[in-house]
Amino acid sequence: MGNTFGRLFRVTTWGESHGGAVGAVVDGCPPRLELSEEDIQPELDRRRPGQSAIVTQRRESDRVQILSGVFEGKTLGTPISMLVWNEDARPDAYEEVREKYRPSHADYTYEEKFGIRNWQGGGRSSARETVGRVAAGAIASKWLRLVYGVEIVAWVSKVGVIRAECDPDTVNRELVDATAIRCPDGEAAAKMIELVESVRKEGDSVGGIVECVARNCPTGWGAPVFDRLEADLAKAMLSLPASKGFEVGSGFAGTDLTGLQHNDEFEMREGKVRTRTNRSGGIQGGITNGELIHFRTAFKPTATVMREQHTVNVRRENTTITGRGRHDPCVLPRAVPIVEAMAALVLADHALLQSAVRRDA
Amino acid sequence: MGNTFGRLFRVTTWGESHGGAVGAVVDGCPPRLELSEEDIQPELDRRRPGQSAIVTQRRESDRVQILSGVFEGKTLGTPISMLVWNEDARPDAYEEVREKYRPSHADYTYEEKFGIRNWQGGGRSSARETVGRVAAGAIASKWLRLVYGVEIVAWVSKVGVIRAECDPDTVNRELVDATAIRCPDGEAAAKMIELVESVRKEGDSVGGIVECVARNCPTGWGAPVFDRLEADLAKAMLSLPASKGFEVGSGFAGTDLTGLQHNDEFEMREGKVRTRTNRSGGIQGGITNGELIHFRTAFKPTATVMREQHTVNVRRENTTITGRGRHDPCVLPRAVPIVEAMAALVLADHALLQSAVRRDA
Amino acid sequence: MGNTFGRLFRVTTWGESHGGAVGAVVDGCPPRLELSEEDIQPELDRRRPGQSAIVTQRRESDRVQILSGVFEGKTLGTPISMLVWNEDARPDAYEEVREKYRPSHADYTYEEKFGIRNWQGGGRSSARETVGRVAAGAIASKWLRLVYGVEIVAWVSKVGVIRAECDPDTVNRELVDATAIRCPDGEAAAKMIELVESVRKEGDSVGGIVECVARNCPTGWGAPVFDRLEADLAKAMLSLPASKGFEVGSGFAGTDLTGLQHNDEFEMREGKVRTRTNRSGGIQGGITNGELIHFRTAFKPTATVMREQHTVNVRRENTTITGRGRHDPCVLPRAVPIVEAMAALVLADHALLQSAVRRDA
Amino acid sequence: MGNTFGRLFRVTTWGESHGGAVGAVVDGCPPRLELSEEDIQPELDRRRPGQSAIVTQRRESDRVQILSGVFEGKTLGTPISMLVWNEDARPDAYEEVREKYRPSHADYTYEEKFGIRNWQGGGRSSARETVGRVAAGAIASKWLRLVYGVEIVAWVSKVGVIRAECDPDTVNRELVDATAIRCPDGEAAAKMIELVESVRKEGDSVGGIVECVARNCPTGWGAPVFDRLEADLAKAMLSLPASKGFEVGSGFAGTDLTGLQHNDEFEMREGKVRTRTNRSGGIQGGITNGELIHFRTAFKPTATVMREQHTVNVRRENTTITGRGRHDPCVLPRAVPIVEAMAALVLADHALLQSAVRRDA
Repeated sequence: MGNTFGRLFRVTTWGESHGGAVGAVVDGCPPRLELSEEDIQPELDRRRPGQSAIVTQRRESDRVQILSGVFEGKTLGTPISMLVWNEDARPDAYEEVREKYRPSHADYTYEEKFGIRNWQGGGRSSARETVGRVAAGAIASKWLRLVYGVEIVAWVSKVGVIRAECDPDTVNRELVDATAIRCPDGEAAAKMIELVESVRKEGDSVGGIVECVARNCPTGWGAPVFDRLEADLAKAMLSLPASKGFEVGSGFAGTDLTGLQHNDEFEMREGKVRTRTNRSGGIQGGITNGELIHFRTAFKPTATVMREQHTVNVRRENTTITGRGRHDPCVLPRAVPIVEAMAALVLADHALLQSAVRRDA
Repeated sequence: MGNTFGRLFRVTTWGESHGGAVGAVVDGCPPRLELSEEDIQPELDRRRPGQSAIVTQRRESDRVQILSGVFEGKTLGTPISMLVWNEDARPDAYEEVREKYRPSHADYTYEEKFGIRNWQGGGRSSARETVGRVAAGAIASKWLRLVYGVEIVAWVSKVGVIRAECDPDTVNRELVDATAIRCPDGEAAAKMIELVESVRKEGDSVGGIVECVARNCPTGWGAPVFDRLEADLAKAMLSLPASKGFEVGSGFAGTDLTGLQHNDEFEMREGKVRTRTNRSGGIQGGITNGELIHFRTAFKPTATVMREQHTVNVRRENTTITGRGRHDPCVLPRAVPIVEAMAALVLADHALLQSAVRRDA
Repeated sequence: MGNTFGRLFRVTTWGESHGGAVGAVVDGCPPRLELSEEDIQPELDRRRPGQSAIVTQRRESDRVQILSGVFEGKTLGTPISMLVWNEDARPDAYEEVREKYRPSHADYTYEEKFGIRNWQGGGRSSARETVGRVAAGAIASKWLRLVYGVEIVAWVSKVGVIRAECDPDTVNRELVDATAIRCPDGEAAAKMIELVESVRKEGDSVGGIVECVARNCPTGWGAPVFDRLEADLAKAMLSLPASKGFEVGSGFAGTDLTGLQHNDEFEMREGKVRTRTNRSGGIQGGITNGELIHFRTAFKPTATVMREQHTVNVRRENTTITGRGRHDPCVLPRAVPIVEAMAALVLADHALLQSAVRRDA
Repeated sequence: MGNTFGRLFRVTTWGESHGGAVGAVVDGCPPRLELSEEDIQPELDRRRPGQSAIVTQRRESDRVQILSGVFEGKTLGTPISMLVWNEDARPDAYEEVREKYRPSHADYTYEEKFGIRNWQGGGRSSARETVGRVAAGAIASKWLRLVYGVEIVAWVSKVGVIRAECDPDTVNRELVDATAIRCPDGEAAAKMIELVESVRKEGDSVGGIVECVARNCPTGWGAPVFDRLEADLAKAMLSLPASKGFEVGSGFAGTDLTGLQHNDEFEMREGKVRTRTNRSGGIQGGITNGELIHFRTAFKPTATVMREQHTVNVRRENTTITGRGRHDPCVLPRAVPIVEAMAALVLADHALLQSAVRRDA
């Protein structure tokens, strides 16, 4: 359970860190969308290990294969199965983990839940699982772009204590990908990279915040009550490895304001109902209002550190463990395409759901 | 769509603010739980309007009736239907809303989504919808308490810029309910109440943060990947009216720390695997580790203010609107039982899901 | 669990035979459908006990109340909650059932499943549960008729060993409702009524077959693989109390033919792709082909008979039981509106699902 | 949509007849089940083309690979991804189908639904899709056998007009697999094979009935109302290619009996509550009563015949088509393992659901 996301645009992911392969099955993608591996590979490349000096050096080419659901270059409306082989698995690097629970990893909880765990590289709890999410998100993203003109852009807005300034209205992927840390504020980006290098040298790690916007979403996407758009986005973001928080629009800082300060007044602009401000983050009552969708996700510092820490072994004895293997000192730059993918999956699902509500719209 | 929550412990809510009634159907509650209206009414009373001077003065007795699923004082395992009649509906107070979209309310987005809206009191987008959630949550809560000893406590930890200090390990409902604002830090509570009174006099409103803990959750609840426990909690919280953010454990502040500072080292304590700190908030890899579950939800200031604001009418003309009717200047104290209810629903659902994973546990 | 049906057009039913009330919540009904109790009551009246001399004489007025989801005469797109109070509950008539399991009823299996059962009138296993289905089906049916011109007609085609002859292409509700047994073949109907009277006098009961057609369904409804339209219809029909079989198109008799005899050849007719025969029953590969949808459901004879039978009591002792209370000697005439309701729910759900597949269609 | 089956024991299948591969992802299989390809391959071999002279001669080795979810020989509780490469795809054989709709196939309806279709071998509507079902069912079957001792046996009980006599209480797989037609009644089997040979020579085809029993199911599996066990079985069976009918226990023939004749009286037998007869087919009120589960599924004659038939082409012109390629003159022997697989999936799902209802049982 828990490996499927979405109601109409659905993705099921599978695969362990060091098993044979990882993959995803997308069910519900509308038919007749032009699609090939080339639509998906660039997103996987942005998520890929080894893409820059500040990420893990695990060597995976992460080549995606589409095994079904596409015919003569177009989607059939049937399930799209995608597969990426694991290449650089080094299970031996994890021998110690067989015996000991790594602090702030899922070793202990998986064992408690299932009574068994794949101790090689975190098994299913590894961030390698997100390969399937990114592949599926790339399809959702292409469909949203072609049918609605929706554009999703995420970027790193905080690493450790370093905050970036970035205009959500103008940020674009080119600016984001201009630096290895994926922060469009060049000055902040330089400091962030420096910080990542520095913690890495110390065998330590660092976290941060990914900010994300979606442009051009029509009004009316979302739902009342339990499946509010922000609720589904929150679920999507908190389902990501290492995420600890989510906020939309004014978020936590909005609690400092009064209602008069916080409310988004309406006005007519270019013939459209618009808000003067966007503290709602583009969503009101769970439903899009046509403004920029805007949210942030907090990621904790990577749990694997190259320093000795106290822990417990499988025989319930106190012991210590020291991180080994190839790890990201900071997951933030690789989290950017993952956040975008999950946002695309949420939006595509709600776009399809809305087709069933207003067939005239 | 969007009116059902949960997979095995499921609740479907229904009802508009000024329609005939509001209610909920709970499907999947285990059989043979002792249950009567008296288990549910106290929670509804904590949510009820008019309970203190600082909340809305709408007069609703909010008496719950159980219509099915209980026989000779025990649950049958069949759906439990609960109903609360709306008594003090004053649709006339909303005549202006028929024509105009209230800023930062859902009037405009509901009309865009559905092509129709109930303009009386917000219809389905009204917080009155949460009556059904609280009634359902009371059942989940009782079951969790009796079967697992789980105790869920929420409290107000911030109102406007006023922050309370409160020990999550010792806070209890008695302390929470001791003040009208439901903040266990007496000094802060006094200031918060003063602030609410003051913004109310100015026709303004204020938001804040509700913090919540769940004690005694067994290890192993939750799931990998999409249905992580924190993901479901995030969805539950962001599905609440006026919520703008969610964080678990160290949350956004955790991004200031390095991995070494942030990691929760394991140790044996009283024969159990425990963590020395709890920055994980009781959840690792989406699964409970036996520590205190700890999360926070941000609520924006109430959108209804008794002051003139710019807006647009249904004919797409600029205009102004001034809040009328009976409203909470601050939703926080009434949000406390709602947050607890949603937490209980999420936990009960995962408790049942775990029964299917480890029948031996 | 198990009390919700459908994915986009969803119904959740609740209520026991002798509890306070029975009802349904419909979620996903499209907005702006004109709807009032008057659209629903006639279908409930067709299902109602006491409607003729050959059905149970339990006295229920079965007046439906809509409690939410409708505003100014139109659906809002929010959940429609409907309620019917139980009036003529006579729990005392069931004292013996408290102790003994009625043969071919669900007393024993409910107790095994839940460890508790409502012994009054079968509790949740009573056919009284179908009130909610019929109310929900009436909404689906109205929507299908107004938006697509779909017309659903069911009738009794067999009672005991008596078979009716009836032309599926021309049968209509007027013909069906012309006789108390709801069989449009007048001659057969007379024999069927005679048979029902006769078994009733003997304290016995009888079963039969309900046949059903849906006209004017567009092509393209349904789905590949697991959610084929006939699979969902089969599930809907086998979910009905007392049903034992389902067949679509040629059904079991089709196994007597060879492929050449059985195949539905295509031809152009009035500018449309049509089949020359309809052994497919309007569905090919799980998807409608524009022909008449045509299926049959078998209902066993009513389990309650007014004669002594062997059974076992709750103390696991052999004993006997004799049926008491007011029961249908034949459920068939009352099953007709229930079959239609379930067919409508399946078709409305697939109609909405198709909106998400081809937004251009 | 429509490619996932089950709630807790879930399978998602993917793949087209002539695409690269077919496969399945099983989510929710309990952890710590010993599992390898060798548990699955024998079932695929029973479904495989070319296994005998009376089935299609398409050459597929159908070797299954497990790509995830199994570690050191045991299931992890995470998704089990399985893959079978398509080897003997001959898309050229289908050039004519590109232009013309085959009678009683899904060519026309897929095109109507999706606006596109894979014309090679039926694409997703091909029975090749059932590879994934059989692979998943083999896992469910093993788990049911090891944990509950459940044994599922299906056999061919009718081919064309030839009926077999077979004792459901004693039939076993050895008897079933003793003949190429998978009918344990040797005399009938010989006639059936003769019939299949004869229709094949004429370029024609034939259908029939698969009967199935499940032994040793505990009481209490199933659910009230919509998810009755027989409803889920009916859905499972009607989701199979070419199936046209389903009946459980007495089925359609039971409508000939009166209630007194039909009822299954209870009695104590070897300390257990048992029924004297089993017209209920092991299910009462949707829930197992501990007796043999017993149902039948009707399969129409194969649609592909090697004779000229009338049809229509994609330009909406009348034309004719003659079957080509390698096809089963009778799907029945290969349907046996598929029916068993689907039965196993339904039962495993309900077994897990029951864990959540009665954790004490």
